[in-house]
Amino acid sequence: MAMQRIPGVRLNEFNVPRLFLYHRALVEVSKAGVSVVTSESLAELCANDVTPTQIRKDLSQLGTLGRRGRGYEVAGLLEMLARLLGLDQDWRIAILGFGYLGHALATFLSYREERFRIAALFDLAPDVVGQTWNDLTVRHIDDLEATLREQGGVDIAVLAVPSRAAQEVAGRVAAAGVDAILNFAPVALRVPEQVFARNIDLAGELSILTHYLTGSE
Amino acid sequence: MAMQRIPGVRLNEFNVPRLFLYHRALVEVSKAGVSVVTSESLAELCANDVTPTQIRKDLSQLGTLGRRGRGYEVAGLLEMLARLLGLDQDWRIAILGFGYLGHALATFLSYREERFRIAALFDLAPDVVGQTWNDLTVRHIDDLEATLREQGGVDIAVLAVPSRAAQEVAGRVAAAGVDAILNFAPVALRVPEQVFARNIDLAGELSILTHYLTGSE
Repeated sequence: MAMQRIPGVRLNEFNVPRLFLYHRALVEVSKAGVSVVTSESLAELCANDVTPTQIRKDLSQLGTLGRRGRGYEVAGLLEMLARLLGLDQDWRIAILGFGYLGHALATFLSYREERFRIAALFDLAPDVVGQTWNDLTVRHIDDLEATLREQGGVDIAVLAVPSRAAQEVAGRVAAAGVDAILNFAPVALRVPEQVFARNIDLAGELSILTHYLTGSE
Repeated sequence: MAMQRIPGVRLNEFNVPRLFLYHRALVEVSKAGVSVVTSESLAELCANDVTPTQIRKDLSQLGTLGRRGRGYEVAGLLEMLARLLGLDQDWRIAILGFGYLGHALATFLSYREERFRIAALFDLAPDVVGQTWNDLTVRHIDDLEATLREQGGVDIAVLAVPSRAAQEVAGRVAAAGVDAILNFAPVALRVPEQVFARNIDLAGELSILTHYLTGSE
């Protein structure tokens, strides 16, 4: 797996969330018509989750140097970050499990400016299969492979299924040629080597808060 | 802010997701009646997201040493991790915004074994306010302060509100004495210093996948 695309730039996965934050802040700035930003104002826009020093360090690793006392050129930096993060292109997404969570995710993504396109929806509940959402019909999960073939495949599968189903569904989407999985079920997925699976466990996110609250008691 | 509770143990925030993974795996193992695990089998249970070496290192930082060729005592390790992560006690949670996402989060947490208690629900849509969910009535967000006072407060506020509302709602829950916020709106929140706000931006999570997909093209 090659993690680079821009020559000379190599990132480990852990920088990506920060780069995404910068990208998001730059989109806002750009919409406001600002053409140059300092690392200080970028940090401010990230609500100081990141220090100006960290921003300068991250961006200099990308080969982008701000000019002292002036800052970074917004358009160029935005384009570079978008390319690096893969946000300059369309991505086809399947959502598996179209309950409250699946529905929330589909709706959320449809309002975002990133080019995430909901391309397929799956469930197995009789009252959910056959529903339509934004011109898409929710298909039965049994028809996963046929539907993906028919609709030209997807790039990313978002798993919003119950825990007991997650591993099986992950195996099936991987076998169907989907190389990226975002999993909301609280189970550690076993996937083939070429597949990149990322897990979001809400309870794990909350434990970061409870650890903080515990420590500060 | 003191981040420690167990004497001699000091963690930075970034270890917590891994410790939570170990905790989750140990809960499973414990339910299966296993009393001792090796770092290798723990790694396996985490679907090899973590190496055995990393596990041994993390756990030795907690002062917990496995015995060579034998492993870690499950009950003791589980108790220690639960205490450190704050998972050995009840936490009262308010969910703000009771649309698809808020509903999904409430349902998800109510099925979990961690002691997250949904203590208050808020929205502002006329058809949502007044609904009941698990014996809780959804209250109007205008009544936030009064409701929290009346119901004895909450420890954590989960923000599932639209972006445009997130900052205002965060300010209000912070002013009402809530020190921990989990925010799903894609905005960087400004909160008072004693408040710990953690952001989950789904698009940011997806960008980790699209960065991977872009790099491996």
